[in-house]
Amino acid sequence: MNFNPGDFVKLRLSDRELECTILESHDAGIVLVKLDSGYNIGVPREHILDSILIRKFEGKVNRIEEIRNKKGLPTIGLIVTGGTIASKLDARTGGVAPLKTEEDFRKVYPELFKIANVKIEIPFSMLSENMTSDEWISLAECVKKMLDDNEIEGVIVSHGTDTLHYTSAALSFFLGKLNKPVVLTYSQRSIDRASSDADLNLRCSAKFALSDCAEVVIVGHAGMNDDFCYALSGAKTRKMHSSRRDAFKSINTSAIAKIFTDRIEFLSSFNARSKNKNELDAIFSDKIVLFHYYPGQKPDILEYYSLKGIKGIVIAGTGMGHVPTIGKNSWIPVIKKLTKAGFFVCMTTQTFYGRVDGHVYSTGRDLLEAGVVFLEDMLPETAFVKLGWVLGHRSWKTPEKIKEKMLENFAGEFSKILV
Amino acid sequence: MNFNPGDFVKLRLSDRELECTILESHDAGIVLVKLDSGYNIGVPREHILDSILIRKFEGKVNRIEEIRNKKGLPTIGLIVTGGTIASKLDARTGGVAPLKTEEDFRKVYPELFKIANVKIEIPFSMLSENMTSDEWISLAECVKKMLDDNEIEGVIVSHGTDTLHYTSAALSFFLGKLNKPVVLTYSQRSIDRASSDADLNLRCSAKFALSDCAEVVIVGHAGMNDDFCYALSGAKTRKMHSSRRDAFKSINTSAIAKIFTDRIEFLSSFNARSKNKNELDAIFSDKIVLFHYYPGQKPDILEYYSLKGIKGIVIAGTGMGHVPTIGKNSWIPVIKKLTKAGFFVCMTTQTFYGRVDGHVYSTGRDLLEAGVVFLEDMLPETAFVKLGWVLGHRSWKTPEKIKEKMLENFAGEFSKILV
Repeated sequence: MNFNPGDFVKLRLSDRELECTILESHDAGIVLVKLDSGYNIGVPREHILDSILIRKFEGKVNRIEEIRNKKGLPTIGLIVTGGTIASKLDARTGGVAPLKTEEDFRKVYPELFKIANVKIEIPFSMLSENMTSDEWISLAECVKKMLDDNEIEGVIVSHGTDTLHYTSAALSFFLGKLNKPVVLTYSQRSIDRASSDADLNLRCSAKFALSDCAEVVIVGHAGMNDDFCYALSGAKTRKMHSSRRDAFKSINTSAIAKIFTDRIEFLSSFNARSKNKNELDAIFSDKIVLFHYYPGQKPDILEYYSLKGIKGIVIAGTGMGHVPTIGKNSWIPVIKKLTKAGFFVCMTTQTFYGRVDGHVYSTGRDLLEAGVVFLEDMLPETAFVKLGWVLGHRSWKTPEKIKEKMLENFAGEFSKILV
Repeated sequence: MNFNPGDFVKLRLSDRELECTILESHDAGIVLVKLDSGYNIGVPREHILDSILIRKFEGKVNRIEEIRNKKGLPTIGLIVTGGTIASKLDARTGGVAPLKTEEDFRKVYPELFKIANVKIEIPFSMLSENMTSDEWISLAECVKKMLDDNEIEGVIVSHGTDTLHYTSAALSFFLGKLNKPVVLTYSQRSIDRASSDADLNLRCSAKFALSDCAEVVIVGHAGMNDDFCYALSGAKTRKMHSSRRDAFKSINTSAIAKIFTDRIEFLSSFNARSKNKNELDAIFSDKIVLFHYYPGQKPDILEYYSLKGIKGIVIAGTGMGHVPTIGKNSWIPVIKKLTKAGFFVCMTTQTFYGRVDGHVYSTGRDLLEAGVVFLEDMLPETAFVKLGWVLGHRSWKTPEKIKEKMLENFAGEFSKILV
């Protein structure tokens, strides 16, 4: 590669070109760059097909290390929200009891405290199946406080597994472009069990929280072994197994990185750590529903929701994004009525993998014509969270604006990469 | 193995023991046996850990070939229901037009007609997203007619992909123990396209329809290449990609067989072809709903359904089978009210992979205590179809009987194998 830190270059990647200034990186496999937008990006070196030097640099290099504040051990923020990872067997009752204090954590996860100084916050403590958007907002506020703390290099959120992927999507939208890593982690088996995944997940999370990747990720076991974890995109991940330790899977995209306890291998480009101020946009309208179509389901459920004050509907349709559009069970009349009245109706797929497309079959064309917005390869759960976030904004109230925002790629919720 | 056709033996498999009479098989890799129940079973030879000869046979061997009626080419039944596999490009309009007659099929799929004589029925023609239980029943009646036709060795159903796995589950319950193979197949790309999967899928379906495996299966591309197909269990399969040719995946179990155009490799035991009379039990109550929990979803939806005359509810909960059971969003009061009033409420998981278990977390124990029935590793879609089938039976009306039937393994809907 014919460039050095400080040079202004054009990089050609397989899916796009970047005009950018090269930053000094402390990882030989990663090219760190600053974009005109002010954001920093990390690119695995082998993803760069070609580079053109536009302007040679003639001054002092902007070292990536300067944006850090290292004094001995680095500091990590840890937000504990409950779930299996924050529990241990209570020998007295035989049940599971929550870990409540920094002292509890220090005893149970000693390895974590060897890697970093840890500042702990516990905004609430619950199993994740009981969480709602209230908890997403309170958690985002807690993360924001830590992002604003100059001592903290990255934030770990420990969380139950049941709805972890909904929460990671919410944080992806609420926190916007990040200046530091935000890592959600979990365990499927509590720390008392020989097969517990908690220790490796936490150690890999700490490794990632100290990396240059300023994204919202889920970190957990990559496979059945205790050898490494994946970092998965917060808005493209789903819990795909009820009990396995590698329960979380990237859908329609690759993992961002493989994390070993002693190193990280980045698999895709990422937004890099910066000194930018982080903006919190934690807002949510719960006037929305998500449902999965099944054969014979009647569209009267849509009318029920409209009477309940619902304003936005995410359908997980069949195949490329379908519900019946002909015969006695046709959904078209009801959908037309709702979209004309200003409801937002959008389509995802219950296959999860692959994308919806309204142009391939007559069914899709009927739905497009009735005003349904097709959400490409966005996951149904992510679409649900995003729609609540979009509808929470007073300034995005018209159907056109809502459609525009739902189709804008804010947090990698679409596979195509838009910087 | 120390046995010969006609011998009465005990076979030890990894998951069970069989006392049975050995039949003559024409496939060296398969041991075909007759059980006391009168059903025939096929077992891959390498799955047999051990065998004990109980009674040596001293007479004429019951040859498996005797149950067939071969005269030149065998005869297959083909039921065409619509979808991409039964369509081709209309050069005049640029749209897709359905294949309507045996002549149409003969022209488009010539390879199929070299393998077998084909008797075609077209009970209806529609994209599968428009199908309801009415079509499942009419299709089952059409299959039954073909199973009763002594000339026909096996039945192929060509079907759209969107709801194929719901239909395969319905046929699995409606048709009970089969005497011949019933193969559902599809294509994701129409036959006019170079990448069409239709031809291989149909040829492998024909191969399977002539095999000794009397089960309801979905046959389609096993991977991205055109090399072989899988036969997947009708009640344990899900469409997991909106467009890939290998869209259908076995969930929580292996494929039954790999099918090449010239041979079949069986991967698990199967119910074998027999002379038994087939019983049709095509009955369905549509007083049921299926829904997937999402964070913040309020339980008032249950009350709405109860007012609409719904009698059974399948929840696809989070993780091991959860909805909120504490706090202001708790579902417990409403669920208790419904189960006390005789509603049937059962639990599956929206992770699809893995099983539900109400005993691990307090959430599950709360739900069990409120009367929710946990359905182990049954897929939500299969549970929906099965509940409609169970509730369709007048003689299975009490909550105890419904629970008993929902937990009985009729068609391999649970991974554990019960003969």
